[in-house]
Amino acid sequence: MKQLKGIGASSGINYAKAFIIEPPIFQILEDKIKDIDFEIKKVNESIKSTISQLEVIKNIAFERLGEDKASIFDAHIQIAQDPEIKSQIEELIKIENYNSASATNLVFNNMSEMFSSMDDAYFKERASDVIDVKNRMLSNLLNIKLPDIMSINSDVIIVAHDLSPSETAMLNKKFVKGFVTNIGGRTSHAAIMARTMEIPAVLGLNNITDIVKNDQIVAIDGSAGIVEINPNNIKEWEDRKRIFEKEKIELKKYVDKKATTLDNHTVLVEANIGKPSDSDNLNQYGADGVGLYRSEFLYMEASNWPDIDNQFNAYKYVLEKQPNNLVIVRTLDIGGDKKLPYYTFEHEDNPFLGYRAIRLTLDKVDIFKTQLKALLKASKYGKLGIMFPMICTIDELLKAKEILEKCKNELETEKIEFSKDIKVGMMIEIPSAALIADKFAKYVDFFSIGTNDLIQYTFAVDRMSPKISHLYQPNNPSLLKAIELTILGAKKHNVSVAMCGEMAGDIMSIPILLGLGEKGLDAFSMSSSSILRAKKLICNLKHKECIELAKKALELETAQQVNDLVSNFLKSKKLI
Amino acid sequence: MKQLKGIGASSGINYAKAFIIEPPIFQILEDKIKDIDFEIKKVNESIKSTISQLEVIKNIAFERLGEDKASIFDAHIQIAQDPEIKSQIEELIKIENYNSASATNLVFNNMSEMFSSMDDAYFKERASDVIDVKNRMLSNLLNIKLPDIMSINSDVIIVAHDLSPSETAMLNKKFVKGFVTNIGGRTSHAAIMARTMEIPAVLGLNNITDIVKNDQIVAIDGSAGIVEINPNNIKEWEDRKRIFEKEKIELKKYVDKKATTLDNHTVLVEANIGKPSDSDNLNQYGADGVGLYRSEFLYMEASNWPDIDNQFNAYKYVLEKQPNNLVIVRTLDIGGDKKLPYYTFEHEDNPFLGYRAIRLTLDKVDIFKTQLKALLKASKYGKLGIMFPMICTIDELLKAKEILEKCKNELETEKIEFSKDIKVGMMIEIPSAALIADKFAKYVDFFSIGTNDLIQYTFAVDRMSPKISHLYQPNNPSLLKAIELTILGAKKHNVSVAMCGEMAGDIMSIPILLGLGEKGLDAFSMSSSSILRAKKLICNLKHKECIELAKKALELETAQQVNDLVSNFLKSKKLI
Repeated sequence: MKQLKGIGASSGINYAKAFIIEPPIFQILEDKIKDIDFEIKKVNESIKSTISQLEVIKNIAFERLGEDKASIFDAHIQIAQDPEIKSQIEELIKIENYNSASATNLVFNNMSEMFSSMDDAYFKERASDVIDVKNRMLSNLLNIKLPDIMSINSDVIIVAHDLSPSETAMLNKKFVKGFVTNIGGRTSHAAIMARTMEIPAVLGLNNITDIVKNDQIVAIDGSAGIVEINPNNIKEWEDRKRIFEKEKIELKKYVDKKATTLDNHTVLVEANIGKPSDSDNLNQYGADGVGLYRSEFLYMEASNWPDIDNQFNAYKYVLEKQPNNLVIVRTLDIGGDKKLPYYTFEHEDNPFLGYRAIRLTLDKVDIFKTQLKALLKASKYGKLGIMFPMICTIDELLKAKEILEKCKNELETEKIEFSKDIKVGMMIEIPSAALIADKFAKYVDFFSIGTNDLIQYTFAVDRMSPKISHLYQPNNPSLLKAIELTILGAKKHNVSVAMCGEMAGDIMSIPILLGLGEKGLDAFSMSSSSILRAKKLICNLKHKECIELAKKALELETAQQVNDLVSNFLKSKKLI
Repeated sequence: MKQLKGIGASSGINYAKAFIIEPPIFQILEDKIKDIDFEIKKVNESIKSTISQLEVIKNIAFERLGEDKASIFDAHIQIAQDPEIKSQIEELIKIENYNSASATNLVFNNMSEMFSSMDDAYFKERASDVIDVKNRMLSNLLNIKLPDIMSINSDVIIVAHDLSPSETAMLNKKFVKGFVTNIGGRTSHAAIMARTMEIPAVLGLNNITDIVKNDQIVAIDGSAGIVEINPNNIKEWEDRKRIFEKEKIELKKYVDKKATTLDNHTVLVEANIGKPSDSDNLNQYGADGVGLYRSEFLYMEASNWPDIDNQFNAYKYVLEKQPNNLVIVRTLDIGGDKKLPYYTFEHEDNPFLGYRAIRLTLDKVDIFKTQLKALLKASKYGKLGIMFPMICTIDELLKAKEILEKCKNELETEKIEFSKDIKVGMMIEIPSAALIADKFAKYVDFFSIGTNDLIQYTFAVDRMSPKISHLYQPNNPSLLKAIELTILGAKKHNVSVAMCGEMAGDIMSIPILLGLGEKGLDAFSMSSSSILRAKKLICNLKHKECIELAKKALELETAQQVNDLVSNFLKSKKLI
């Protein structure tokens, strides 16, 4: 038996024989060619075949995964059809006498490297799309088969260096019981598709393809990120699988339940979403609305600043999916580690402490106004909340609100309708805002605590920096104090207070958050897949006990002490 | 009349005729040479002349500026004597047949560029030392005179692109009434020397050398950073100068006075120092001890991690200069924007949120122990306080204290004496520490609030980032709240609380800081040149009124409102 720890990317427990997907090996010869026309013809035929194959995969993906996921293949087809790529390949053949395969290889590699070098999760994904299309092009040019994933007809766990979007789409859920890869993270295409297909997956295992042999038994726990090769105790895995399945069924009971504690205190459990289509199945995840719609994806996926119609359609789509619930849209939060393809940020030594989010939109008022007007126009299709990110001074908040009022006036002049009941709120993600939340509360309808950033600033720690990431401590009493100040400040002015950072979905923090500052949080917003588990936990707690727990936690000194406190509390109630 | 705004680098008000220092123009021909021996001989002679000239300047500097400042020329002489530089120049002559001037020019430029590219204030200064020596070498090789600063024999304001250390040392205070430059900042050699010589200086004026003509009248205000060319109202400048001189004399009265308010509340006003020699004249600045000795300069100026003896001598030097006052030494605060010549930091996306200060020393325990043992050994020569920087969790504080105890035990085993009355404290410069200062206070003898970092983290703003530096707001109520929490936390455990950031020396903040949390700060630590002004202010305030003022400030919402409040308060008392 050998146990490996990776990134749990899609929950679920399963075991089966390993099926190793070997990446295709293309021998790209550097031979110069003479027959230019022949090579160009080969490229054109390969493009045609590539497109028609992608159309097939797209249709399969549409059936198995739905429209949104299938749209990835539209992007792939666009790459294959790209006239710029084609003409670059042809130029290499004509002028430098490259052969078709080496020309194709070079042009696609250059494009992929350009994306990779942008040092941004989003563009790194684009790079992998390019490589995916390149491999299909080369397989057609060189007559080398790509791994035949569709032919799998017995239960397997897929083992691969990486799974491309097209490979993932071809997985047949009937036989593929899970997959494990060397590379990839929670936000890679493979991870997202695994969650949609509800196939357990563990990624980022570094070298599992070197360790596993075909037909060895592989067991995986997609929540814990654990993989066992040749497990000693298959019985134990069977038990774990049964418990997981049982719990999954049990969790379904909470889909239509409210998150109400045993002593009758109700909170909202909402979803964080990134794309309009993420709102499609929120009801089946049990979401009480959208606590955070990250509007920056609209900007990151566009090729220029998105116009008002483009944005309006996206916001309307989400609002209409949630007719009875509040949908909170966060205005553009770009900068820091999030870049745009069409805008160059000036170099900063510390971009996390720099020009980003509201700091950028208050500076580029036209871009801000376009977004606000799109939001206002969409507001009549549902219940809209507008939320400003990275507010650190009251001056900024008042300026943002002033611009919003100006947009309202302009729309009124243009006789464009919008809802009169839009909620306006702000993120609490900078210590300065938490410290005097009581003053900020006078000017908003709601707060939402963004713990990911709040923790980074409160402890002065970039959690991506491996040598100090241990200082990123959600349950540290310092952070709990900042949250308590926020809740007390909000309650002083009857303002609702939510949390939309990762901490909001963490079983180890929820009991404290329910009781902090006596009233606790009003809403918890998290990734859809965490909602039911959070609801179940809340329904099995007493608010009064959570208040006591939070008070005790605030008296402690270290994160470890708080973790032990919560752990004992939950164990005593048999909740973990 | 034309007014310019630059960086006020040395206070004082003066006006006189402009004396423009033109940089020497060296025509470096690219001619290849034939007589190798002749060129090499020229280089050797030039090195000799350069060294002997530098010895003369060093002696002048010693008389005018003291030992510490003169030591810059030891560094210059070392550069001129450097065998590596010499052999590189000779190689270019022998192998590539460069002439002596072009070989010298190239080797020195390469060396200077190497330092410049290190993107660090300290190394950028080293680069300017190299250029300074290069110019002297070239002037000797090409028989071109360097600007004859020593010959100035009537009142002038010097106007230059930049002033090299050697040029500054040659300034005769009798005739040089001030200087203004295109480049340079508050920490450049020129600025430091100007303050030592008490010559008013305004730096960073971009292109003043293009604007001023020789003999035009130039008036400068070295505190406000203002320069007027051909001032309209010379009478007004005369008045300002008279007021400044009068105030300077008046301030001298506070040298031996305690900082005691009109209603008999006494605080300490201490000095921040960077080098042992900075402690030489602290008494004449009126310092009540050293509130912050930045030990990192010891490390930055060394060519390898400084050993225990090296450090011991530095600490002993400072402690002996202040026999009756506490000297607080901050343990190594490196990383962030402070680099070391002999240690390579791994790249981080946000170094301010990264591996620095106590995070590094808790990781590199041997380096930490060397420093702590040097401090312990020196402790018996005065009253020592050891202060840990960048503490963000109680775990870190306890770990640092544990290592200190271990060092004590090891010294006891070795029978090395140290004081039994060493104070141990920590910087409050990360929001997490301010938020639960009451808990940290249980484990220390003193706090010192480092506002420069605390403001940056509290507002998530790197003040070096020009687009957002307006969010760096010392008097913002959020920051005042963090300081209040720190003071209240300290007082709960009878711990003394100081401030050593720039805010501590700011007239616009001192009245609030005296009253925050009722008891206010116990000590204010600042650059020596600010001490007397701070003492005078404190001696003219009532503590009771400061408490009221602080309470009012905490009720406000913006930095502007607080600034107005303080400004009105001080005006009503005729203190500004």
